[in-house]
Amino acid sequence: MKTRLLSLVICLSAVSTVSATAGKDARRAVKDRPNVIVIFADDLGYGDLACYGHPSMRTPRFDRMAKEGLRFTSFYVAASVCTPSRAGLLTGRYPLRSGMCSDTRRVLFPDSSGGLPASEVTIAEILRALGYATGCVGKWHLGHLPEYLPTKQGFDSYFGIPYSNDMDRVADGKLGKNIFWNPESKFWNVPIMRDDKVVERPAQQHTLTKRYTEEAVKFIKGNKDRPFFLYLAHSMPHVPLFASKDFAGKSKRGLYGDVIEELDWSTGQILDTLREEGIAENTLVIFTSDNGPWLIFGLHGGSAGLLRDGKGSTWEGGVRVPCLMWWPGQIPAGSTTTDIASTLDILPTVTKLTGGKLPADCPLDGYDLSSHLTGKAKSPRDAMFFYRGTKLYAVRQGPYKAHFITQPAYGPGKAEKHDPPILVHLEHDPSEKHDVAKENSAVLGRIRELVAEHERGMRAGVGQLEGKIGKGK
Amino acid sequence: MKTRLLSLVICLSAVSTVSATAGKDARRAVKDRPNVIVIFADDLGYGDLACYGHPSMRTPRFDRMAKEGLRFTSFYVAASVCTPSRAGLLTGRYPLRSGMCSDTRRVLFPDSSGGLPASEVTIAEILRALGYATGCVGKWHLGHLPEYLPTKQGFDSYFGIPYSNDMDRVADGKLGKNIFWNPESKFWNVPIMRDDKVVERPAQQHTLTKRYTEEAVKFIKGNKDRPFFLYLAHSMPHVPLFASKDFAGKSKRGLYGDVIEELDWSTGQILDTLREEGIAENTLVIFTSDNGPWLIFGLHGGSAGLLRDGKGSTWEGGVRVPCLMWWPGQIPAGSTTTDIASTLDILPTVTKLTGGKLPADCPLDGYDLSSHLTGKAKSPRDAMFFYRGTKLYAVRQGPYKAHFITQPAYGPGKAEKHDPPILVHLEHDPSEKHDVAKENSAVLGRIRELVAEHERGMRAGVGQLEGKIGKGK
Repeated sequence: MKTRLLSLVICLSAVSTVSATAGKDARRAVKDRPNVIVIFADDLGYGDLACYGHPSMRTPRFDRMAKEGLRFTSFYVAASVCTPSRAGLLTGRYPLRSGMCSDTRRVLFPDSSGGLPASEVTIAEILRALGYATGCVGKWHLGHLPEYLPTKQGFDSYFGIPYSNDMDRVADGKLGKNIFWNPESKFWNVPIMRDDKVVERPAQQHTLTKRYTEEAVKFIKGNKDRPFFLYLAHSMPHVPLFASKDFAGKSKRGLYGDVIEELDWSTGQILDTLREEGIAENTLVIFTSDNGPWLIFGLHGGSAGLLRDGKGSTWEGGVRVPCLMWWPGQIPAGSTTTDIASTLDILPTVTKLTGGKLPADCPLDGYDLSSHLTGKAKSPRDAMFFYRGTKLYAVRQGPYKAHFITQPAYGPGKAEKHDPPILVHLEHDPSEKHDVAKENSAVLGRIRELVAEHERGMRAGVGQLEGKIGKGK
Repeated sequence: MKTRLLSLVICLSAVSTVSATAGKDARRAVKDRPNVIVIFADDLGYGDLACYGHPSMRTPRFDRMAKEGLRFTSFYVAASVCTPSRAGLLTGRYPLRSGMCSDTRRVLFPDSSGGLPASEVTIAEILRALGYATGCVGKWHLGHLPEYLPTKQGFDSYFGIPYSNDMDRVADGKLGKNIFWNPESKFWNVPIMRDDKVVERPAQQHTLTKRYTEEAVKFIKGNKDRPFFLYLAHSMPHVPLFASKDFAGKSKRGLYGDVIEELDWSTGQILDTLREEGIAENTLVIFTSDNGPWLIFGLHGGSAGLLRDGKGSTWEGGVRVPCLMWWPGQIPAGSTTTDIASTLDILPTVTKLTGGKLPADCPLDGYDLSSHLTGKAKSPRDAMFFYRGTKLYAVRQGPYKAHFITQPAYGPGKAEKHDPPILVHLEHDPSEKHDVAKENSAVLGRIRELVAEHERGMRAGVGQLEGKIGKGK
């Protein structure tokens, strides 16, 4: 793959002044716009929910959400690790554009000095400009210095941990990996923040899911009379795994299952609240995950089901995740789509549904799925590009996926280039076992053209992940 | 594992004389007994249906059957290859008891002289004795000499192929494996039989699923006024794969998907017929598969989903299969059970539900699931024994599975003994990746006791699979 020009594209925030006018009048004017809730799990795999085929996991609330809504079977994240995946969701842009990926440090760490640039326009900014209440609850991981916090990216409020729950490790080194098998909150010094203040440190992790849920429910109840956007980004099931007393030891799938079943409960609480408040039919709820399961953590990692590999990888297990969309009366109940869609599509879709304005002069990588959700049209997305760091490793077009580079998800394994690329037919072979490049040279030709076009339109942002506090960027 | 005594146990067919009295009077007397239909797919894997998580397969009729019935997630076959698996289902006994397994020839072949002994009591014999109409449609594979045909095992009628559809191969050797990639019926000389007569040879395989379905529907309509038992054992998706014109090229999953989608259609036809005839609420329908997917056939084989390995293996992918049970008004709609159950349990369950008599003086390996189906009780089954040929390779008890011997499903790979056995926790680890033997010696102790008890009660029947026509048994 070619090296790309590093150039900062400023997405003109045409919306920023509008938000100043959003007050009581705006609230009344936009009362009938739909509420939007995005529930984002951390490292939950394609195969982890009962409604995606897991044999021992009990997820009745996710299953009910699927029965009442739309289940995606080819839904992709913007990257197979945390920070770039989240940047992609909130901006509708491949993380390379915002500089939120790197070939050295794959995500932000506590000593990182970078974050999502203020020039990037998030879903929260677009909706706030319309008068929406905007709340962020959970894991942020898009920069923890004051200038990068959620309240600087369009959110009225924030409650949660600013990066991963396995960071800020302070446990005695002798414990080694045991800190994961029997985790205690004190092994990590990760903070909980409210808006821009640290309110708890170390975060008491057993109650994270429960407290996030309470915050989310409070936000919904407090804003039921105006349109709102809630971004509920759970810290779980990212290791170290923590479940509350109500769930610990209760599942058939061990601690990992306890954690998933608490997320299931949490999602049920959200949907129940919407029903109780009489706003279910005016609320689009999207559930998905930031990347595939962290397989190197064994039984503390999840399952990608029949998909190959997991988190960190550009094989399907790293990038294809469960996705449920729920909107009673708008999304046909119990529907399934095999069409391609992505977290990148959430921003354009939500913007369309709410009547918002897309950021001006800003290349977007998402598609408006609104007609697809309601069963009126096919998904407009035909392709997906899979990056590892700043490099394009694989591309899906239609049912085919070409792997130009493959690499073990984690560890010392090196990148291996393939020319011709490995080509798999994902609908015939979702487990990516059979290279069909030889008999499909025309397909490869089309994919190469698509890559060339994609690269012509790609401008990489200034890298945000390498810089360390006190050392400049 | 110990070598076992070879001794023929005669299951006294207390039922055989009763059947002679079954006429019009009997029909009236048993009118309110439930009908039973067993639909048995061939080599369909745990992960092949949409309702078991396949991302590109469209199986709306199986999915609807699941929504209206009970879906099992820990349902096991009696063996991971065809002949012994079928013997287990129809007799409720591990195939070692009937001699329907072997360490040299794993199934019956066209030159085989053996078959299911007349002394074995099948579900058909038990129900026929109650006055049921009994029909067998599809693949038999329990002996094709006259004395072993379905009509000698309790079925009033038979229509189908007597063994696998890849047997009787007559294709030019030069075609090699290409006979599978673009199969034509003439490449095999497999016959279609009606009762005990060959009526077509070679079988025109493109229309097998369609014609089996038509036969099944005709059987149901012809017997709607009396109780009936229908055993519909599809030839598909066993290679060579054949779909009718209506389905060929239509699925997203290639020819394998076409074949599965035709089975989906077929199952819909059966359920629709029951509804149209007004007998749905008096009919238990069971759908399952004879073993896991035949992975060595690549894209012409299916998927075991997240389970390890496939057909021929004692890993879960070989022995755990989809199972749907449907009985409107009796089985709670949309239920899922993670409890252990098996094809071995069908005979005792059906016998209980119909008021039939279990065979006298005959050790059975199945459990009555009738209270479990209706949601009144847990499954009575706590353990499952996994044989390869005549040898016990693995045992599941509760959530644990001990592998005493492992071996590649097919090919030259040798059996590897494990002492201590490999121990996996299937509910934590359905993919059987993590050996937890070290930390669970007490579990291993219990499983060893269970094996000892099982072996004390096991008497192997005279082997039926080695004998060849003209060479004696």
